Amino acid sequence: MRIATVKVRDIRFPTSRQRDGSDALNQGDYSATYVTLTTDSGRTGHGLTFTNGRGNEICVAAVKALARHVEGRELGEFPAGMRSLLFDLTRDTQLRWLGPEKGVLQMAAAALVNAVWDLASRQAEKPLWKFLVDLAPKDLVSALDFSYVTGVLTPEEAISLLAERSEGRREREKTILEEGFPAYTTSTGWLGYPDEKVERLCREALAQGFTAFKIKVGTDLAENVRRVALVRDAIGPSNRLMLDANQCWETAEAIRHVSALARFDPYWIEEPTSPDDILGHAQIARAVAPIGVATGEACQNRVVFRQLLEARALSFAQVDACRMAGISEALVVILMAAKFGIPVCPHGGGVGLCEYVQHLSFFDAIALGGMGSGQICEYVDHLHEHFIDPCRVIRARYLAPAAPGTSAAMKADSLDAHEFPGGAAWQD
Amino acid sequence: MRIATVKVRDIRFPTSRQRDGSDALNQGDYSATYVTLTTDSGRTGHGLTFTNGRGNEICVAAVKALARHVEGRELGEFPAGMRSLLFDLTRDTQLRWLGPEKGVLQMAAAALVNAVWDLASRQAEKPLWKFLVDLAPKDLVSALDFSYVTGVLTPEEAISLLAERSEGRREREKTILEEGFPAYTTSTGWLGYPDEKVERLCREALAQGFTAFKIKVGTDLAENVRRVALVRDAIGPSNRLMLDANQCWETAEAIRHVSALARFDPYWIEEPTSPDDILGHAQIARAVAPIGVATGEACQNRVVFRQLLEARALSFAQVDACRMAGISEALVVILMAAKFGIPVCPHGGGVGLCEYVQHLSFFDAIALGGMGSGQICEYVDHLHEHFIDPCRVIRARYLAPAAPGTSAAMKADSLDAHEFPGGAAWQD
Repeated sequence: MRIATVKVRDIRFPTSRQRDGSDALNQGDYSATYVTLTTDSGRTGHGLTFTNGRGNEICVAAVKALARHVEGRELGEFPAGMRSLLFDLTRDTQLRWLGPEKGVLQMAAAALVNAVWDLASRQAEKPLWKFLVDLAPKDLVSALDFSYVTGVLTPEEAISLLAERSEGRREREKTILEEGFPAYTTSTGWLGYPDEKVERLCREALAQGFTAFKIKVGTDLAENVRRVALVRDAIGPSNRLMLDANQCWETAEAIRHVSALARFDPYWIEEPTSPDDILGHAQIARAVAPIGVATGEACQNRVVFRQLLEARALSFAQVDACRMAGISEALVVILMAAKFGIPVCPHGGGVGLCEYVQHLSFFDAIALGGMGSGQICEYVDHLHEHFIDPCRVIRARYLAPAAPGTSAAMKADSLDAHEFPGGAAWQD
Repeated sequence: MRIATVKVRDIRFPTSRQRDGSDALNQGDYSATYVTLTTDSGRTGHGLTFTNGRGNEICVAAVKALARHVEGRELGEFPAGMRSLLFDLTRDTQLRWLGPEKGVLQMAAAALVNAVWDLASRQAEKPLWKFLVDLAPKDLVSALDFSYVTGVLTPEEAISLLAERSEGRREREKTILEEGFPAYTTSTGWLGYPDEKVERLCREALAQGFTAFKIKVGTDLAENVRRVALVRDAIGPSNRLMLDANQCWETAEAIRHVSALARFDPYWIEEPTSPDDILGHAQIARAVAPIGVATGEACQNRVVFRQLLEARALSFAQVDACRMAGISEALVVILMAAKFGIPVCPHGGGVGLCEYVQHLSFFDAIALGGMGSGQICEYVDHLHEHFIDPCRVIRARYLAPAAPGTSAAMKADSLDAHEFPGGAAWQD
């Protein structure tokens, strides 16, 4: 299978106009660096990386720079072709300097890697999660890159781990196809929403069956106490309440805020400080236990996750499908987390992230037997209408995607209308 | 002082043709994302960030995205204007997602931040190091960003540290103006050079007065032993020999290689593994002591350095002037390293890095009294001819820069000839 062309588009949704997605540090127009691969035989694969508006053009430029490794490429047999492509994308002798394996370059690699997974799973006529679940452990592992993490998980150990957990797999798959995968909602508590809107959204989410809710917190302690009390009141004492600080605190400040909010019984504190501060996360985790620390949406690669796991710095691994080198790197993190017994609770939201990460959660639950250990997948009810095969959340559970591919292909009309700066959505 | 315009150019030198700069993972065309600021009154400030060829256009795109925070900006009094600009560049509510504070965005911020330091020191009619040395501790600290590192160094502690070390400062300045700052050479041992060339370059460097030499190593142990033996032979038993692995090893592999090379008495092992692997560096440091671990050229920001220092993961902090948010963030790392008693040995090479980091070393030696604690500054003899005020290394010592500014302004002819892709250097 030879990839003939790589097309990349700058797609943006003007979400900042409603303050959707507002938190302590970000206020964005949800955007996608959107890649379409076309093979000689006319097959297509779609992949995207999520960005926050301004700067999406930088990520588009990075995809163009990396496209030399994809355009005209004979992919060869899966999985060997996948690993060699991954190496070329993350180890380009000149582009590597701009990371390495982080920032815009890694996000651009994600869009391309994800498009190839889309192509491969479409060719197999399976949704991504099923394609992954059905791969032999050694084939799956052969598609991935374990460099810099062999100290905690070698490829051989990963194969053994998958083989060990294969017991009961069919049963798990049957159950999850019937019951779906549990979701929590982040749509209720954006920082820019007024109280009445938050209360109304909580009521609506309760009516939809949600039992886990996330609210944004900031640097004003009194305001945090007020808003967290309001949400706890709205959802009642027995539902789960997660807090998300979006990196706004220093280490000591995080401990002070979380301690003051402990009486509202939060389930986790998310991104309490800089995502680069592994030792700080470990310090916070020790101080606020049994409240868990969750992080990952800004973790750049498997090496950072490895250390968070080693340092016991997190209780929930929030894998993202576009921040690291796409699905390939997310899978390495899921395998490491399984070894450490840390539940993976993927990062949804933005545009397309829920579509992607549902596949990761289904794979995790079936192949690694993760259900029942606190795993839950983020759900944000935004922009799904633009996808051909959108994620479906019913009674607070993700239903298993059924169509072949990664669910990330957008509708042609949506792409045209939201292309930046020429699309109709950007004309006023 | 109002900045009227921001101009950015894509400047590349075809260094890969000679395999200059070749190491275990990189093989580049040394490049600069080159920024010129012009004020209403016609003053100019020049700043650059170093990249490795392909992808320089991505960094140029990032400068353009960040320029909105600079163009038309009234800088106000130094230092308050500097800190608020730094905040705007690193905390843009949309662009921040592309980092945060890492990768291409941080490098682009560096070019802009460095251009403003150039402007400020030119206005003061001082070379940067002297401008910095003459600032009152509270003014210098007020220009910097200590967020996420207050757990190890608060702004107040930084002011105290500078004040404490001010004793003997005049004497140190006098001495260093007479004697210069010690340099080591990396020009002798690029991985792509044949043996005869390495031997010849070692002889020439010895004749020039160098007593410290760095050689690249790779993943082939037998080849490493052969090449390190060759260089040790060429420079004799009493000179310093540094090894640079450029991130090519796993943790255990690093320990194995360095242990096997220990008989050649290396002074440090540089970048033994992933720059993101703080705990891995700490493990290597414990295993290979008394050989030191050096790292920093790929450290993304002060938060990563903070942890390397806290975890006792490095013996030498190789601050770069363009990787992080420019001179501003490098100064925070220098202050933290001073507190931990870790010598700063800045990262030179590429294009323009030696011009920048000499200022950091002179500042460090004078303001923080670092001389005599193992500090030495990297010197690579490439591309200095393109600078108006190039660094000067005589008898293996950097001479104190005398012209106002940061020394990073390039000659107009060099800029024109090396602009990519239109310049004369890129026409064949």
